[in-house]
Amino acid sequence: MPMDRLQECIRKKKTPICLGLDPRLEYIPDGLVQKGFEEYGQTLKGAAEIYYEFCCGLVDSMADIVPVVKLQSACFEALGYQGVEVFGRLVRYCKDRELYVIADCKRGDIDVSAESYSAAYIGTVKIGEMEYEPFGCDSVTVNGYLGSDGIKPFFNTCLKHDKTAFVLVKTSNRSALEFQDLIAGDRYAYNVMGDLTEYISKKSKGKYGFNALGAVVGATQPDAVKELRKRLENTFFLVPGFGAQGATAFDAAHAFNKFGHGAVVSASRQLMCAWKRGLYEGDYMDTARSAALDMKADLKCIVQVL
Amino acid sequence: MPMDRLQECIRKKKTPICLGLDPRLEYIPDGLVQKGFEEYGQTLKGAAEIYYEFCCGLVDSMADIVPVVKLQSACFEALGYQGVEVFGRLVRYCKDRELYVIADCKRGDIDVSAESYSAAYIGTVKIGEMEYEPFGCDSVTVNGYLGSDGIKPFFNTCLKHDKTAFVLVKTSNRSALEFQDLIAGDRYAYNVMGDLTEYISKKSKGKYGFNALGAVVGATQPDAVKELRKRLENTFFLVPGFGAQGATAFDAAHAFNKFGHGAVVSASRQLMCAWKRGLYEGDYMDTARSAALDMKADLKCIVQVL
Repeated sequence: MPMDRLQECIRKKKTPICLGLDPRLEYIPDGLVQKGFEEYGQTLKGAAEIYYEFCCGLVDSMADIVPVVKLQSACFEALGYQGVEVFGRLVRYCKDRELYVIADCKRGDIDVSAESYSAAYIGTVKIGEMEYEPFGCDSVTVNGYLGSDGIKPFFNTCLKHDKTAFVLVKTSNRSALEFQDLIAGDRYAYNVMGDLTEYISKKSKGKYGFNALGAVVGATQPDAVKELRKRLENTFFLVPGFGAQGATAFDAAHAFNKFGHGAVVSASRQLMCAWKRGLYEGDYMDTARSAALDMKADLKCIVQVL
Repeated sequence: MPMDRLQECIRKKKTPICLGLDPRLEYIPDGLVQKGFEEYGQTLKGAAEIYYEFCCGLVDSMADIVPVVKLQSACFEALGYQGVEVFGRLVRYCKDRELYVIADCKRGDIDVSAESYSAAYIGTVKIGEMEYEPFGCDSVTVNGYLGSDGIKPFFNTCLKHDKTAFVLVKTSNRSALEFQDLIAGDRYAYNVMGDLTEYISKKSKGKYGFNALGAVVGATQPDAVKELRKRLENTFFLVPGFGAQGATAFDAAHAFNKFGHGAVVSASRQLMCAWKRGLYEGDYMDTARSAALDMKADLKCIVQVL
């Protein structure tokens, strides 16, 4: 079943870290930026190639430690189709290094449009007699505001292609509560979304006990994480908010079940921008690796991946 | 103020029609598809070029009638970066013909990521000393599940660049009610989203009385449209669901205020696939034009654009 492959990637590296790649020019050392500008000019294409080199460096420096990579689509789309081309190239680079790749694109639409999104990111597209994987990711994040019409097409693609998708349930940002914490009957709105997610994917439980559809649950509100872990027994959690967004390993601890399974914890700036904090020696790759090793040690205090 | 420009485009053409471009190979006449395959092969690039030619034909056939075009991003993303490149090229094609272009990409993320999305679709991006418009659309659709953190960056970009954004409030699909119709206190969840949208953009009212942020309100539930029109006096509506999705001009009528302002009604398959229904004479362009003229006449029965 689809979610087993993610759990196995995590077991192999013995840590549930997800490297978040949200590149921006200000996160990248000057030397790398200038080199890119000289080669390609101060263009969208130039910035995209700089992102590529920066991200490949990060991946190389951590591929033996980190099992999962999450690419923030917004950063790449901001560079037009040239950025999107690099997004696809980076996915292949990560896949070649046996990393589990999540497209963090938070897509949500209905019927044929949702089918198109799921085909684009985790499925295949037929053109005449040919079949293509437009982006070929292992997983994708989904916004379920449109209801099950918007989620089911992703679920179907997951089953067909051994992929997974993570539905936004409780996000890590401050204003999340304006909408997600509405109280409807005896449930928060985010519980309704969580229940819907678990319901849609209920017949896809793998050997670790998790369905093909996971949930995005921010670590910044530990009480909500605790409650959701109890409520959604068969739902794997993608947990953003670690490090720069303020959540600690202790906050993230609630996302795991008693076997230490069921969650992957994502950090972006915490790793990408480690070179800026001056805590570690070396270049941006060395410092990112050191930060990842520290994160691994932190997480080991709260969860043993068996 | 940003929404004035949209209302003026509609006044100029004297109809509130939005041509929805959601291309799929099965919507395109065989001859066009085969010609594209011969030139580019059965590839993602080939399909993208076929979409381009098909959509340009539709735009040419209707540019003098229709004020607004909405491009469904999912269709283009399904063809990888080659599709995204064509998406951008189509935006420019429509802009050159003075159409108001909405990127229907339903993006939603937080803080810097939401800024990136808004910069990509309706704003500009700085690379070194240079500034680029990655896609250069006039408007974009937004998913507000993440709360105001996810909506404000779009609003700021609207003000800065004289653009607009439409937040998903009540969508036209059947399962929308599973989440959007939750009852929280004395409001439906979709009312909360609508209120939040109107609140965020309350200081951006233009001369027709509408804020920079609009709302997506499906025509398929006339009662909800009526209620929302009353509740969100200063919010312009983008109304999908006309034609193939089942809504009629009478259903859409409730989206307009007493001056006949405040809404644009979108039809996709109704126009794109008119050639398949055998109701009109001519090729796909002629038939689409005829269908648009019929839609214009239908809408004229329910609303006079002054």
